[in-house]
Amino acid sequence: MKWENLTLLDSYKKLQEAAVVDVKAVMAGENGAKRVKEYCVPMSNGMVYNFASKQVDDDILAILQEFADEAELTEKYAALYNGEVINTGEKRLVLHQLCRGQLGDDVIADGMNKREFYVSQQKRAAEFANKVHAGEITNEAGEKFTTVCQIGIGGGDLGPRALYLALEGWAKVNNTLKMEAKFISNVDPDDATAVLAQLDIAHTIFVMVSKSGTTLETLTNGAFVENAIKKAGLDPAKHMIAVTSATSPLANNPMYLDAFYMDDYIGGRYSSSSMVGGAILSLAFGPEVFAAILDGAAAEDAKAKEKDIRKNPAMLDALIGVYERNVLGYGMTAVLPYSQAMSRFPAHLQQLDMESNGKSVNRFGEPIDYVTGPVIFGEPGTNGQHSFYQLLHQGTDVIPLQFIGFKNNQMDNDVLIEDTTSQQKLSANVAAQIVAFACGKDDDNKNKYFAGGRPSSIIVADKLTPETLGAILAHFENKVMFQGFAWNINSFDQEGVQLGKILAKAVLAQNTDGALTEYSKLLSIF
Amino acid sequence: MKWENLTLLDSYKKLQEAAVVDVKAVMAGENGAKRVKEYCVPMSNGMVYNFASKQVDDDILAILQEFADEAELTEKYAALYNGEVINTGEKRLVLHQLCRGQLGDDVIADGMNKREFYVSQQKRAAEFANKVHAGEITNEAGEKFTTVCQIGIGGGDLGPRALYLALEGWAKVNNTLKMEAKFISNVDPDDATAVLAQLDIAHTIFVMVSKSGTTLETLTNGAFVENAIKKAGLDPAKHMIAVTSATSPLANNPMYLDAFYMDDYIGGRYSSSSMVGGAILSLAFGPEVFAAILDGAAAEDAKAKEKDIRKNPAMLDALIGVYERNVLGYGMTAVLPYSQAMSRFPAHLQQLDMESNGKSVNRFGEPIDYVTGPVIFGEPGTNGQHSFYQLLHQGTDVIPLQFIGFKNNQMDNDVLIEDTTSQQKLSANVAAQIVAFACGKDDDNKNKYFAGGRPSSIIVADKLTPETLGAILAHFENKVMFQGFAWNINSFDQEGVQLGKILAKAVLAQNTDGALTEYSKLLSIF
Repeated sequence: MKWENLTLLDSYKKLQEAAVVDVKAVMAGENGAKRVKEYCVPMSNGMVYNFASKQVDDDILAILQEFADEAELTEKYAALYNGEVINTGEKRLVLHQLCRGQLGDDVIADGMNKREFYVSQQKRAAEFANKVHAGEITNEAGEKFTTVCQIGIGGGDLGPRALYLALEGWAKVNNTLKMEAKFISNVDPDDATAVLAQLDIAHTIFVMVSKSGTTLETLTNGAFVENAIKKAGLDPAKHMIAVTSATSPLANNPMYLDAFYMDDYIGGRYSSSSMVGGAILSLAFGPEVFAAILDGAAAEDAKAKEKDIRKNPAMLDALIGVYERNVLGYGMTAVLPYSQAMSRFPAHLQQLDMESNGKSVNRFGEPIDYVTGPVIFGEPGTNGQHSFYQLLHQGTDVIPLQFIGFKNNQMDNDVLIEDTTSQQKLSANVAAQIVAFACGKDDDNKNKYFAGGRPSSIIVADKLTPETLGAILAHFENKVMFQGFAWNINSFDQEGVQLGKILAKAVLAQNTDGALTEYSKLLSIF
Repeated sequence: MKWENLTLLDSYKKLQEAAVVDVKAVMAGENGAKRVKEYCVPMSNGMVYNFASKQVDDDILAILQEFADEAELTEKYAALYNGEVINTGEKRLVLHQLCRGQLGDDVIADGMNKREFYVSQQKRAAEFANKVHAGEITNEAGEKFTTVCQIGIGGGDLGPRALYLALEGWAKVNNTLKMEAKFISNVDPDDATAVLAQLDIAHTIFVMVSKSGTTLETLTNGAFVENAIKKAGLDPAKHMIAVTSATSPLANNPMYLDAFYMDDYIGGRYSSSSMVGGAILSLAFGPEVFAAILDGAAAEDAKAKEKDIRKNPAMLDALIGVYERNVLGYGMTAVLPYSQAMSRFPAHLQQLDMESNGKSVNRFGEPIDYVTGPVIFGEPGTNGQHSFYQLLHQGTDVIPLQFIGFKNNQMDNDVLIEDTTSQQKLSANVAAQIVAFACGKDDDNKNKYFAGGRPSSIIVADKLTPETLGAILAHFENKVMFQGFAWNINSFDQEGVQLGKILAKAVLAQNTDGALTEYSKLLSIF
């Protein structure tokens, strides 16, 4: 297997030389209708990835297939799930998919079968959650816990929070909301204060999430919460559990009621499938719902093994993104889920994508001479339509769009106004936007003119359920992974976050000089 | 006064030819410390705008001053607040600043003094809110209302929501949280369903916000809420008020308990200072708090009249942004408030900036040949540090950063851990980040190497209060306005949102063809 820089690939040179597709032209009339029918890849769980409005045609797709083959993308994926050291910077395996299913060989590391280890933790968390729900694990007064509050930041916060919010309404109408979930993340003391004010501490389990057990914000907020529990006259050790690695200071620690383990082979931003998501989601929704999320993801992981890009939605999505970024020169991607429940999913993808692929060196630590990960941003539709879509439609930059749509809403409540339901209005809007972006509109008044030619794709699911949510999560994880392979970078470390940490410590130790001293004064730290 | 395209200005040509500043070099050592002290502009309300880490020096600043003079930026601002037709596309005045204070001449339009009109509405909303708080206006059972829920989208949602969240914690500790506020925005029926489930309808006042009275999402959600009120056996007309223009179908309508008015001279994204923000914020926090927000904004509006860019933080910020966008070629800006209370402020700025300046024609409707508004995104620090900062530090694109920091937190609750408070840790982090981005770090291991040279600025306030929040709001509104003047575009219309609306209606009427039919089928609308 060869790990080569993007610019060394013959297929990349072909991509650069290939005729650029005019989206407006190809999406007009009957040909556009034909593309929508044909440029549609089945995903797992009854979903589809439709890329009709992307800037590709059969010629570009043929080169993207060559690229996938030449860059050995599926072979690299296989190496990853079979346990090679894919995270070269930190010399670690990359095993988050193994939480969801067995994709290849048994992976033996640290003297154990890793799949068995992850499953054993899932079982322990399930048993713990079931006991909490059954009132077998209670607070000191023997009363049931009603709320679970996660204390974590970055991967310990964004993914689990996005998943919780995505299913909270669904769980309510399906009578499987066992406990309400809250989240404390920011070291800003007002975050913990505000969240604690919304809680009944006496009936809350707090989940401390830090793989290393050394994350400044999380330890600080943990201590903040401990103080609050003590002030309420309660014993923190009866209200807190930990999610951490087996070697961290949080592990096997009598300060916690219990602890659930992950390991160094699961990066924070990929950790929603591990105990980082598993503990809180099992408590909030019941272990069966968390298991269904994993099943949905596993099915999508299996799709990602396909060599044919027309059968592998994550790989196709990844390659179109590389083409847009490196050949067409687009620097951003907007993620636009037409579902209010997915309100924080773009924030999760922002971390997933930008922390993974915002790199300037290849996997061997050598500087590269091409652009890598784009900026990711987004808000739910239709809200975004009344906000930043103006720039997407008529701004001076082209920004590729990633829509996500659902045929049905989650909660069994809708209203018929002017002969259509709200869900029909929502779906009509996403369909209309894709066509508006692609086809534009001529107008003699140039202020009302839409150039069109603005590329987008859409993932369509029947409904946002645990399974489809898991599949969407896995789709983007795998897309980011394939793009990292294409760029020949390490998508699994994050050295770019270290310098700030070091300098912040220097400020707190007042061991600073130059600009750092003056900025610290400005912020009244000295 | 001349309205000329950017590229015709002599000072712009000078900017293009000026030596580019190396942030890493100028921010090193004692010179960096000196810049932090000197490149600091006083704002109103005891705040400062510090631009030491921006890619400017005295030479660039001198040209930016020439630019401000040549483009007649303060003259154009004066024309705006004195009531000229600045919104050329819609042939409207632009008067949002007039809600906050009298900056120039009396503005007479539609047969009235507009400042008096806005103030009269503020007084009416204040009286209404006071009566609700005093229990003089009650529900049908004679009980006090406890909750206020806004139904609006875009400008009717993002700004008011961001402001409410920014002050909710502050209001709690200052005993001025009169009513809890909630928001329904998305046409997704799950949004209204989920929010209504969190409410006690019998004790809630709903605020319908639509200037035209024709916004699809808001009318639909209004009907949704009406149904819910009726289902609860209550009279909607006793639970709903309207914020709208005097000529809309919502005005003088017996369906509403009362109505508060704005007009066509206040664009949605600039409407937080009007009744769009005023009704809900007066109800939530009391009229005095809303008045304090306006006072804070008015003080900052006054600063924006200064001709000297070193005394006009909004204009300086705007011009540095234009320099970064058009000369240095940076396409995005990240907004990074170090305050959890400002969690939705970046989403508001995203609308404010991208909807205002995402344009490809000048104010006369002529195509332009230079780039305009950047993409805006952001999340609160320290959360962002554990998410997308990796790309900001080590990605292949330079992304200018707009930090916002506070010396003190809002809620009187903090914890001392390892000799520092959480607030000190928060402040240490923002100081450290600015220096890390500017100065970088050499390392033989290129994976741990930080190139530095990544420009940022910071707004520092003592505390996030109604006054400083109002000032920050006005700062960004005025920055966006000055950039629109610099680009010679109309920052006050939004024609780019129209096409999607038309096509969505076509879908709902099943009056479609080509790709629109097929996308509609894919989303099961047909």
